[in-house]
Amino acid sequence: MLQLYFFPMACSLSSRIALLEAGLDAQYHFAHIWTKKVVDDDSDFRGVSPKGAVPVLVLENGERLTESAAVLQYIADLKPATGLAPAFGDPDRYRLQEWLSFIGAEIHKGFLYPTFWYKDDGSLSKPRARITPTLSVPSAHLADREFLVGDRFTAADAHLTWALLVLRPAGVDIAQWPSLSAYLERMQARPAVREAIATEMALRKTLAA
Amino acid sequence: MLQLYFFPMACSLSSRIALLEAGLDAQYHFAHIWTKKVVDDDSDFRGVSPKGAVPVLVLENGERLTESAAVLQYIADLKPATGLAPAFGDPDRYRLQEWLSFIGAEIHKGFLYPTFWYKDDGSLSKPRARITPTLSVPSAHLADREFLVGDRFTAADAHLTWALLVLRPAGVDIAQWPSLSAYLERMQARPAVREAIATEMALRKTLAA
Repeated sequence: MLQLYFFPMACSLSSRIALLEAGLDAQYHFAHIWTKKVVDDDSDFRGVSPKGAVPVLVLENGERLTESAAVLQYIADLKPATGLAPAFGDPDRYRLQEWLSFIGAEIHKGFLYPTFWYKDDGSLSKPRARITPTLSVPSAHLADREFLVGDRFTAADAHLTWALLVLRPAGVDIAQWPSLSAYLERMQARPAVREAIATEMALRKTLAA
Repeated sequence: MLQLYFFPMACSLSSRIALLEAGLDAQYHFAHIWTKKVVDDDSDFRGVSPKGAVPVLVLENGERLTESAAVLQYIADLKPATGLAPAFGDPDRYRLQEWLSFIGAEIHKGFLYPTFWYKDDGSLSKPRARITPTLSVPSAHLADREFLVGDRFTAADAHLTWALLVLRPAGVDIAQWPSLSAYLERMQARPAVREAIATEMALRKTLAA
């Protein structure tokens, strides 16, 4: 069975969403990315992945795959009929990769990561100034589209859904981009998305306590 | 014919390397990413891509593809025999995607981008502290391997070659990671890599003057 190492409401949420959308069973391991411990057994998470970051997907053959862009495509390709990734050879496959890269690099690594890990204002004025032009890209794209790629939910939507959810605790109110808030509402109406968020929000609360 | 919008020695260098390695003809347009002007005709680069970032690959059908991870896979798939990307269905394809994501997010957007665009020390202490653990990942991986993925040059090598080249002007001496400096030397011995760098270094010098 597939295994996913995750941290509640971190970017591994999109891999959980993809697994649920694909109807794939998986074993989930809570990896505490602050302490680098696996919560199940208090073992060293760096023994699972030297990067110490989530997601880590343990494949059926025991190999470990990291990086959301790769993990999401791997999950999607296990269930091609779900359309979570356009088939290889479909030009939209490159659009999926384009969005996964943009979300991972510009929204996540360019803004969310420094916001949650660097914290101090000196590190954050430049990333903060960039998030508005950054978000104008998906906002314009989604003005007349239901999904990021083609006409169905893909792994790119799973990833953007996570990013948009986390923008609020990062201090960005997405209400200023009506196409993004309407999109997030549509995505959150999906049962798999709702289930993934409910599971991880419950776990997240155990951390704050 | 394919067209590539590039800025000399920016991350679009890896797309030029991939085009040359694949033996693909292309028209190259110098896009000035500081002024957002296309140098050919002084037109607005944001008219080509609202992101105002390179690379932009104009496909045979006129569509525009952005983000190195997507552009590199597109180029590679045009010439499958070159092995620039493992075929779809080959588990190594996900390893390629994993490395493209890591290089794009952790090395480029996490370190090189703030270094060259944010400049001030307040923004840079945290990214600078992270680059050593970040580079330990490819350094360990390449300790006993010639290439990042499988046993031949792929688009991931094109991308890491660019990132390693640019680390020096970003103030990081990669000599402290012998496996990385040996790797960079091997990559730079490749005719396509040498040609791409020579072309862009010559153009880069016109900027400094």
